[in-house]
Amino acid sequence: MRAIVLAEGAPYAPAPLSASHPLPPPSPDTTLVTIHAAALNHRDVWIRKGLYPKIVPGSVLGSDCAGTDESGRRVLINPSVNWASDPRAPENPDIYGMLGLLPLPGTLAEQVRVPSRLVHPVPSHLDFVHAAALPLAGLTAYRAVVTRGEVKPGDKVLITGIGGGVAIFALQFARALGATVIVTSSDDSKIARAVKLGAAAGINYKNLDWRKAIGAHGPFDVVIDGAGGEGVAVYIKSMRPGGNLVVYGSTAGSEVPLQIPIVFLKNINIKGSTMGNEAEFKSMLELVSKHEIVPIVSSIVDGLERAEGAFDMMKNGNQFGKLVIRVHEKHHL
Amino acid sequence: MRAIVLAEGAPYAPAPLSASHPLPPPSPDTTLVTIHAAALNHRDVWIRKGLYPKIVPGSVLGSDCAGTDESGRRVLINPSVNWASDPRAPENPDIYGMLGLLPLPGTLAEQVRVPSRLVHPVPSHLDFVHAAALPLAGLTAYRAVVTRGEVKPGDKVLITGIGGGVAIFALQFARALGATVIVTSSDDSKIARAVKLGAAAGINYKNLDWRKAIGAHGPFDVVIDGAGGEGVAVYIKSMRPGGNLVVYGSTAGSEVPLQIPIVFLKNINIKGSTMGNEAEFKSMLELVSKHEIVPIVSSIVDGLERAEGAFDMMKNGNQFGKLVIRVHEKHHL
Repeated sequence: MRAIVLAEGAPYAPAPLSASHPLPPPSPDTTLVTIHAAALNHRDVWIRKGLYPKIVPGSVLGSDCAGTDESGRRVLINPSVNWASDPRAPENPDIYGMLGLLPLPGTLAEQVRVPSRLVHPVPSHLDFVHAAALPLAGLTAYRAVVTRGEVKPGDKVLITGIGGGVAIFALQFARALGATVIVTSSDDSKIARAVKLGAAAGINYKNLDWRKAIGAHGPFDVVIDGAGGEGVAVYIKSMRPGGNLVVYGSTAGSEVPLQIPIVFLKNINIKGSTMGNEAEFKSMLELVSKHEIVPIVSSIVDGLERAEGAFDMMKNGNQFGKLVIRVHEKHHL
Repeated sequence: MRAIVLAEGAPYAPAPLSASHPLPPPSPDTTLVTIHAAALNHRDVWIRKGLYPKIVPGSVLGSDCAGTDESGRRVLINPSVNWASDPRAPENPDIYGMLGLLPLPGTLAEQVRVPSRLVHPVPSHLDFVHAAALPLAGLTAYRAVVTRGEVKPGDKVLITGIGGGVAIFALQFARALGATVIVTSSDDSKIARAVKLGAAAGINYKNLDWRKAIGAHGPFDVVIDGAGGEGVAVYIKSMRPGGNLVVYGSTAGSEVPLQIPIVFLKNINIKGSTMGNEAEFKSMLELVSKHEIVPIVSSIVDGLERAEGAFDMMKNGNQFGKLVIRVHEKHHL
């Protein structure tokens, strides 16, 4: 089958499309999924750059897809493997993993075989393209907003860096839960799009007074942050006592200065968050179905042979929403 | 009555003992407590140094005491005023406060009148001196260990800076809950005392290899830290995924560098913690009674007229346990 396979050699070797990747062999308690659409995540770019320690050339890339199982049922796949239900962290970090990194198969392919417990029906209001956009970013946002952020109706929530897949799902989920959401971005057009999706307001952090603006919109019950950097201290100041600052990334800076006294005097919680467990994935699908949430897709690329263009878009990083690759049936087998 | 009253004038004005402080006037829903023993906390020193923003000369100092109510019942007082039961933070920060800072009366006096809901029976296994040592540090430790740390039987818990009142109670409470406890100190004799109290081991952080030693004793489910400083990064490295780092002070450094990626990749929780609410105070007394926990008293000073010596000991900061002042009955009224 055709598949996007991590090349041997230097980081970011070109032309990762393999025309003759072996079909996944049958094994018990697994389901073969024929993929109709797959989505990219930043991690796929980082893997190609060699930034993941356990990277193995020959891995099929990709964590997200939607397609059909052997009985023709429309399905998508939970990319979080071997994390059942512990809300704190994977039960056994040694066997925990994610689709798209050997020994776990990836989704940028015509077919993938995965443990059957990871296969779920596509929410009925979604087509394959939008369903493919959901799994990894949706799960990460669900854990951040619901499990870690504990967002409740009426909460005031700050979501930073709107435009990325996780941040947009976090906005959609927090709105579905009845929260008031303020977003930040460096791009006024992204803020405008977020407001159309239900954000009450947006703050452009390139403006000189962005710190004041964040303070003026607070106090926040919950902050969902994928950026890190100098914003962290500003967010903590703007939070109500006992509030939750959920950090799921650090694209703006990995090391931040933390003022301990404000953290203890305000009983602040700083909670790291990754993608989630199987229980959270199911709850995420229920929330998406109940509120008929439609993932925001930035671009659709037609065919695995055009995947390199999608990778380029992902590297440029200016999209609002997910990048989806249609996988055409004519190429199956 | 006699009382230790914050003097007018420069920070740390001497001779704060007033011989003729007015008796607390009667008011509804309050209880008059005749004080038999009172305890010092670092905050009393900080208040005298002028480090509390709302400080008012004329305040009676002190947050801790044990004595008798008007019917002769042995009682102690919850120093946490107007924080009922919200586990996150005080319900209304504007009216929240602590004994020992105007408009709330202090306990370094012969009598104090407080809202009756704050008055609780002394656990039957404790005398006045040991009961007086319990309220503020015990409540702070209870919130840190139970509510914020979520310590469970079998957990491995690191408690830093053993010797301070909160850290010792945290050790006693964590042991009562069935945890294995490792402590740190700069003083081998304090480590030896902690081991006698049930710590499994201690690490002297003046040793060159203290970072390695902490890593070797991990992974920790919970860290209870009142120091901050460069230790924080070491603790986070030594924690298990999903673990709780509870910070209740920063005596070793207020600003620390925080590595965001390890926080999110390990789903770490950093939780600020203060003293607690009324529900936590009651639960703390139940834990102390059930396990017949006896507060560790470092020194007993005989009479309010010798309080200045107790303040000097507190400033020097080398005690293991609480400093208690006996308040003699002959001086009442």
